[in-house]
Amino acid sequence: MEAAMEAAMEYVTALPAQTLHAFTKEVFERVGFSPAHAADGADVLLWASRRGVDTHGVRNLKLIYLRLLEAGMFNPNATFSIEHETPVSARVNGDGGLGLAAACWAMRLAMDKAEQSGMAFVTMHNSFHLGAAGYYPAMALERDMIGICLTGYFNGQGAEIGVLPTFGTKPMFSTNPIAVAFPTQDEAPWLLDMATSIAPYNRVALHRENGLPVPAQWGMTDAGEPTADAQLLHKMWPLGGDRAHGGHKGYGLSMMVATLSAVLSGGWDDGHDGDEKAFNGYKQSGDGHFFGAIRIDAFRPVESFKRGMDAMIQAIHAAPKEKGQARIYVAGEIEHETEQQRTRDGIPLTAATVADLKEVSEKYGVALEI
Amino acid sequence: MEAAMEAAMEYVTALPAQTLHAFTKEVFERVGFSPAHAADGADVLLWASRRGVDTHGVRNLKLIYLRLLEAGMFNPNATFSIEHETPVSARVNGDGGLGLAAACWAMRLAMDKAEQSGMAFVTMHNSFHLGAAGYYPAMALERDMIGICLTGYFNGQGAEIGVLPTFGTKPMFSTNPIAVAFPTQDEAPWLLDMATSIAPYNRVALHRENGLPVPAQWGMTDAGEPTADAQLLHKMWPLGGDRAHGGHKGYGLSMMVATLSAVLSGGWDDGHDGDEKAFNGYKQSGDGHFFGAIRIDAFRPVESFKRGMDAMIQAIHAAPKEKGQARIYVAGEIEHETEQQRTRDGIPLTAATVADLKEVSEKYGVALEI
Repeated sequence: MEAAMEAAMEYVTALPAQTLHAFTKEVFERVGFSPAHAADGADVLLWASRRGVDTHGVRNLKLIYLRLLEAGMFNPNATFSIEHETPVSARVNGDGGLGLAAACWAMRLAMDKAEQSGMAFVTMHNSFHLGAAGYYPAMALERDMIGICLTGYFNGQGAEIGVLPTFGTKPMFSTNPIAVAFPTQDEAPWLLDMATSIAPYNRVALHRENGLPVPAQWGMTDAGEPTADAQLLHKMWPLGGDRAHGGHKGYGLSMMVATLSAVLSGGWDDGHDGDEKAFNGYKQSGDGHFFGAIRIDAFRPVESFKRGMDAMIQAIHAAPKEKGQARIYVAGEIEHETEQQRTRDGIPLTAATVADLKEVSEKYGVALEI
Repeated sequence: MEAAMEAAMEYVTALPAQTLHAFTKEVFERVGFSPAHAADGADVLLWASRRGVDTHGVRNLKLIYLRLLEAGMFNPNATFSIEHETPVSARVNGDGGLGLAAACWAMRLAMDKAEQSGMAFVTMHNSFHLGAAGYYPAMALERDMIGICLTGYFNGQGAEIGVLPTFGTKPMFSTNPIAVAFPTQDEAPWLLDMATSIAPYNRVALHRENGLPVPAQWGMTDAGEPTADAQLLHKMWPLGGDRAHGGHKGYGLSMMVATLSAVLSGGWDDGHDGDEKAFNGYKQSGDGHFFGAIRIDAFRPVESFKRGMDAMIQAIHAAPKEKGQARIYVAGEIEHETEQQRTRDGIPLTAATVADLKEVSEKYGVALEI
């Protein structure tokens, strides 16, 4: 639904999704990731690019993953491990590795356990940015499961940029998204992937990079003033905005995500990491994630659930619309249509992304015709 | 956090919580509920009243439960039953009975299964208004579990009053709340209980009943105009409000709640109830609910989780505050403090509730000294 906004983005060319996928995978291998991790990483980024979620697509290859890898911020040779498990749960360690691959591994673990037990949740600590949170619940769809992914970061001493707690003046939360997918029959899969802030952080970054203004309702400057300048937007509102508009609910959801992702995974404890004498300044050990997989047939037959989803979506499609709106969308529908269009026509790229990709191509000696 | 708003409510007297509890239980028995169902019903209503959640407290004894029971809207002799189950799940039938008791029964089933299996979810269809959704996750706290309750209604042909889908002009959702509780050590239990609309429906009703205006951001009239008149507020905004303020996320959460509560429980299907020739007009069979219980120790030791929660809450308490705000609250904290105060000082009652309780007392011959 960001279509109108993205229209201001200027695309200079387009490349086939499979070309960008092969390139991304090869670059990830060249910088030291295993072929399996590189493939997962490319899958996640290209999924976002195909679906029009440019904020989380190939645009981030250099901007987030290669830049921070070069800065030594994460570990190319990570081994993901299970620290505790039951037939329905696991607490796992991302070993400071590529979050995209770590998250795929953890989501597969949740699905395999759910296959056996009916449902399972996996919490991961010590991980890194996992890309588009919606990718992981979408993995569950072909197995006729409900998929869930949350990822959260809580900064106990406040961050320069982030989401405010209601009545607070210091950002303490990342934009802590909630992503949930439900399988359907003929309709597009229902897929909610939402930051618990009004706007996700990566969208602010995208606007900043492209010199575009931001809507005043997204957040405030350091001084607490509304701003249209993406560079100055540091204090982001939780979903709802201020207290009068229900912002305490967005803040509550953000803290719920932080708890399930970070406290339940062991990524956030009492600030001592087990050493009572050494207070670590409330530091969270890397990003925390939470993955869930729930078999539909643990409750009712898959086919009747899917028919019910289709009927619900069709009832919404048929409902009366606001003047000027041709359609009422359900979650994931616009992205599903974009995916079909971009799979056919290629992934459009901005000048900034083209420049980044060319630089990566030269630097790592991986050919890419743009 | 509704304290400022409730200050406009005029209380005329107060009664001890145990007096109101005994009265409520006896009235429920007098109208035909079993002692066990009556006790559960009184527990849920008084829990809300003690916590200052007057919208869901004893105020509703006559207004919702007795009124609709007399109108034949639900079944005093309900038998709750399991239609399908696994060690981690159940789909259950509320038999059109007292939602307060049905929900207690279903939440206990989820907790008992979780005790054995680590976690469990129970979906219920054919139920009725369950009161304060937060009561059920709170039940899980003393068992060192995370508790979850969702309750949802989707109206495929639109309702007179309810929540709008983004770009739609017909209310299609109830205010479909999300309630989640996390155990803590010394801090108040963390308990989020939020409608996925800006304001819950019962709050609109409370304002209407007390002749109070409503904030314009809560919703619109039938004609789509903002209004301060609680009588005319029919089209409620999802959390976030319009599209520019992130309202599509509140709408997405509302549909997620409807799906987990109604589609997964079998309360909503394809509008045919199994009979392909008879379209029922997309009718949902009663309220749908979703209950979850998750053992903390399926992931990490309970004590470290609780210490982590306390540390997170203390970090938020210590953060810098907006001018004019003495505290930053976390979810459930104000209600926890109100509970302590009202347990000591009694439950304050408005003139309207006093009149209702007197009428109920006379009608059913259950003594109450006011």
